[in-house]
Amino acid sequence: MKEKNIVFGIRAVIEAVESGKSLEKVYIRAGLQGDLSHQLFNVLKENHIVWQTVPAERLARLTTGNHQGVVAVMSPIEYHDIREVVENSLAIGKVPLVLLLDGITDVRNFGAIARSAACAGADAIVLPEKGSVQVNADAIKTSAGGLFNIPVCRSKNLWFVLKFLKEKGFTILGASEKSDYPYYKADLRGPVAIVMGSEDKGISSQVHKMIDSYVSIPLKGEIESLNVSVAAGILIFEVLRQRAQ
Amino acid sequence: MKEKNIVFGIRAVIEAVESGKSLEKVYIRAGLQGDLSHQLFNVLKENHIVWQTVPAERLARLTTGNHQGVVAVMSPIEYHDIREVVENSLAIGKVPLVLLLDGITDVRNFGAIARSAACAGADAIVLPEKGSVQVNADAIKTSAGGLFNIPVCRSKNLWFVLKFLKEKGFTILGASEKSDYPYYKADLRGPVAIVMGSEDKGISSQVHKMIDSYVSIPLKGEIESLNVSVAAGILIFEVLRQRAQ
Repeated sequence: MKEKNIVFGIRAVIEAVESGKSLEKVYIRAGLQGDLSHQLFNVLKENHIVWQTVPAERLARLTTGNHQGVVAVMSPIEYHDIREVVENSLAIGKVPLVLLLDGITDVRNFGAIARSAACAGADAIVLPEKGSVQVNADAIKTSAGGLFNIPVCRSKNLWFVLKFLKEKGFTILGASEKSDYPYYKADLRGPVAIVMGSEDKGISSQVHKMIDSYVSIPLKGEIESLNVSVAAGILIFEVLRQRAQ
Repeated sequence: MKEKNIVFGIRAVIEAVESGKSLEKVYIRAGLQGDLSHQLFNVLKENHIVWQTVPAERLARLTTGNHQGVVAVMSPIEYHDIREVVENSLAIGKVPLVLLLDGITDVRNFGAIARSAACAGADAIVLPEKGSVQVNADAIKTSAGGLFNIPVCRSKNLWFVLKFLKEKGFTILGASEKSDYPYYKADLRGPVAIVMGSEDKGISSQVHKMIDSYVSIPLKGEIESLNVSVAAGILIFEVLRQRAQ
């Protein structure tokens, strides 16, 4: 981890948050106490920033500086507000395409999906705040810079994002190998949100409630599943294919 | 490199070749001489096995054994004959789909393409003998076992493979970002061979002569190109989509 990507010390982290810096993750020493630490926790909560309690040794590996029990990893990208992104697209008459990654944890898969989404001119990628991939230098590299060309949004709860998208007229499609509804039979010409589940657990139960239809990519071989970034690429470009007809 | 994947010593390597073992690569010490080495070179040439001349230190890193100037890396897969594979598919009335990777050098991209091709039930992946990716443990892992489920063929010259495929009624399509012919407008329902060029140089000039049409995946974003494994996935599954209609 390069030192330049981190901020340490309680007051420094509070100031980073209050000045609007994108923090990827905050590590806090177990048992941190004191007035200033209360202020820190309040600021993190207000700004929906995820923190993780760790042993002191973990912090020592992140910095040799006087961290006072708090180290924050800066995000290499700025996060966007999904509502703003979608409202802006609708305002200019664009038919939006949004990708929700429900718990994708592999950094390279995430980077590859971001590259495809950026190539397709998709409107946004939405990640849950917890249990998702860390947007780091590897993700940026795998995305071939794509992560600087597509708005990435984070949400405490994808359910609320999907509810908002439904209100805006989106069809919500979930990718599932178990569906017998081929992806190319779904009408993808209107506003569409595609939900890709995590590599191991699939789509979470809360998100599941908001799915209009599950689509699958019919396979013919003996291998059971496509790589999630290839599957995302196939679905994203089917949207473009249908819209070009 | 695990010792079990290598064979060393001049006579041992000759015997490995003559007994039909799949050798991925042969490393020979610069300046190797003697009667037995002449025999080795002849056997390698007859069997179209690629070798590379290296300094002695390189061989010492591969094995601590008495290598006599020759170390061979075994292939984790058995290679197939593209003619046999295609004749077999045609004989059972299957409409074949063949993928030619013209100089793909990234092991993970290769593994990912093999996974998609295996998922799609494609008939074969064809690699050139020289200037292509090494089929190693990383490739197997990235393919999620797909490399054990799709025939992989090697050819000294892809031109001859394409000539054979044309004689068998294949349409030869090259993937190129520069084409303005969208992939979904090409008729992919008959026997099709898709050529993916290398990540940096694209499709080689000899192969170029055999391409019937170049197709592109139209992009909409500011990023210039898709990852080659995602592009291959999109093209492969467009073939399946068209054939399912």
